[in-house]
Amino acid sequence: MQTTPLTESSLLPLVPAYDSILELAPYQTGKPIEELTREYGISDVVKLASNENPMGCSPRVTLAVTEQLGQLARYPDGNGYYLKQALADFNDVNIDQITLGNGSDDLLDILARSFVGANDAIVYSQYAFVVYSMLAKMQGATDVEVPAHRFGHDLKAMSQAVQDNPNTKIVFIANPNNPTGTQLEHKELRQFVASVPSSVLVVLDEAYIEYSPESNNRALIDEFDNVIIVRTFSKAYGLAGLRVGYALSSVAVADLLNRIRQPFNVSRIGLAAAAAALADQDFIEKTRLMNDEQMRWLEKQFDALGLGFIKSHANFIMVEMDDEDALLINQALLEQGVIVRPLLGYGLPTWLRITVGVAEDNMRLIDTLRSILTDD
Amino acid sequence: MQTTPLTESSLLPLVPAYDSILELAPYQTGKPIEELTREYGISDVVKLASNENPMGCSPRVTLAVTEQLGQLARYPDGNGYYLKQALADFNDVNIDQITLGNGSDDLLDILARSFVGANDAIVYSQYAFVVYSMLAKMQGATDVEVPAHRFGHDLKAMSQAVQDNPNTKIVFIANPNNPTGTQLEHKELRQFVASVPSSVLVVLDEAYIEYSPESNNRALIDEFDNVIIVRTFSKAYGLAGLRVGYALSSVAVADLLNRIRQPFNVSRIGLAAAAAALADQDFIEKTRLMNDEQMRWLEKQFDALGLGFIKSHANFIMVEMDDEDALLINQALLEQGVIVRPLLGYGLPTWLRITVGVAEDNMRLIDTLRSILTDD
Repeated sequence: MQTTPLTESSLLPLVPAYDSILELAPYQTGKPIEELTREYGISDVVKLASNENPMGCSPRVTLAVTEQLGQLARYPDGNGYYLKQALADFNDVNIDQITLGNGSDDLLDILARSFVGANDAIVYSQYAFVVYSMLAKMQGATDVEVPAHRFGHDLKAMSQAVQDNPNTKIVFIANPNNPTGTQLEHKELRQFVASVPSSVLVVLDEAYIEYSPESNNRALIDEFDNVIIVRTFSKAYGLAGLRVGYALSSVAVADLLNRIRQPFNVSRIGLAAAAAALADQDFIEKTRLMNDEQMRWLEKQFDALGLGFIKSHANFIMVEMDDEDALLINQALLEQGVIVRPLLGYGLPTWLRITVGVAEDNMRLIDTLRSILTDD
Repeated sequence: MQTTPLTESSLLPLVPAYDSILELAPYQTGKPIEELTREYGISDVVKLASNENPMGCSPRVTLAVTEQLGQLARYPDGNGYYLKQALADFNDVNIDQITLGNGSDDLLDILARSFVGANDAIVYSQYAFVVYSMLAKMQGATDVEVPAHRFGHDLKAMSQAVQDNPNTKIVFIANPNNPTGTQLEHKELRQFVASVPSSVLVVLDEAYIEYSPESNNRALIDEFDNVIIVRTFSKAYGLAGLRVGYALSSVAVADLLNRIRQPFNVSRIGLAAAAAALADQDFIEKTRLMNDEQMRWLEKQFDALGLGFIKSHANFIMVEMDDEDALLINQALLEQGVIVRPLLGYGLPTWLRITVGVAEDNMRLIDTLRSILTDD
């Protein structure tokens, strides 16, 4: 992946759509296991970097995917009829309130393209998903980052930022938030939505909602036409490799989003797998229980190691490396086959974000971390 | 799918990014087989509507997909290392000249977002892929449609259009063209590229290149930094259901495109399947031979039925329905389980686009068509 900054002269005489596009850094993905194996020759790798479900996905998914193997040459159903029907039942909404995406990334993209022009602004919180500010740059728009409060969204300050920037078109709110794991009270969030003009879209990014069912703000869709909820099958449902997400909104907004999205944005395999995954809520329950139990275990270990952490409501936890350089510790972990996520790109250089794994993975992480910290 | 026009008032107080977004009609996809079965209760359906490969895909693909079934919970490699390496070898380019897309649709999207701002223009030909004009509307840009010459691109007129619109950022050229099947001479195309300013991107959409190897303009990438070639695994490679495409360009352009694309735009299954498909060029050769043979057979049948057609260089053929209403004939075909593509949306109301199928499918089409035309 390229990491050098883009410059105007490198492209000339071609010119990007907007100057702000030149500021885009490539998104830093969690290192794939294959890449670590290729670079370091380590085959026994534990990846706790991308908030994937370490239990995999429902066994029903394998069956659903296998059934599609004879149909790969056929385009997917561009309307996603069966998956949307299942999602409508599951979320108690009408089928025409749903927009499907190639992962929730795709939906965030579609939302920005639908509503944010070059003279508009996007408001989001410090320490929130890095893609929100990238979307503003892609659209040639203004990105307004509101300082966080105790690593979480400061909704009062965000409401003020919307007031101060009358060209605001979208406010992004991640709940629970990535990478900090913080969550917002329903009452507080409802007050925030009521406080912003109805011409401003409030996008609730609920990528980690299955780990924190009390964060579910589905009810706000009925009350406010300017609220959109975005969800994904990449986390608890264990389908990160297949790229499926969805948005719940008013009918009018869904109609617009469906015109902007690529007609075949979700693959045939993705559609079938997501429907099968949604039907297996027992798997989600098991996932949540395992995550809760392992999260408590990890918290205890971090306490024992004297490492600070932020109480998390998702399937990852942010741990502070004291005076150590988190990048050096990250590197030492990598060399021993443990992939976690450094947060320099989020302005959190002393922190690591660690995905909650299965017991065996977490023990390996803690043992490796302990040995690194003790060596120093 | 919604078909009523969007109106400003339906969204108010929300306002789309650009007024031109309100003009977007939902893209009309070829009717999925499942949908026809659902609506008409017909199970024995022949689909010749979406230029899919009727032979399916290489058997190597099934194996490659099956190998990924245990890894669905893991994000794909965001850099697409193995597929890009294979594509670099196959196309004799450097790996950093490649951008992967969620189908070539995604690459066209990424190109427009990278280079076309609200004050810019996109130039394309009448009777070319309908998505080009939609992209201009999504970006709030001007779409300049140049009248076709004998159903193909009029390159002289397109060069003039670029000159007349100094805000042109992209020219889209489909070669072979969809839906007309026409192709351009290499010499003529090279002259066109040399005639436009080097600040204008010339996007060569080679979605059907495997059916017309002589249309390959790969060499232009070496000569012109403003040329981009876009290709897909959805047609001859038989992976329409999996959504994989790629672009070849200069390193600088690829760097920009890779910053605009979503980091996980191609699924884990898509990456593995495309690499396996690319490795089986015998399958592509078989596909081309079958297509050529069946194309000749269909041409004879259309002659015998007294139907005009446009000589095609791809895996579909455009047939004129004389004074008949193509929509009525299309409807009659649907009711007998044969799906083809009416071209009203392309301003070609008397024409149907028919994908070349395997012998059995084509016989079924011709028999059904003959009975409809005879009944009238």
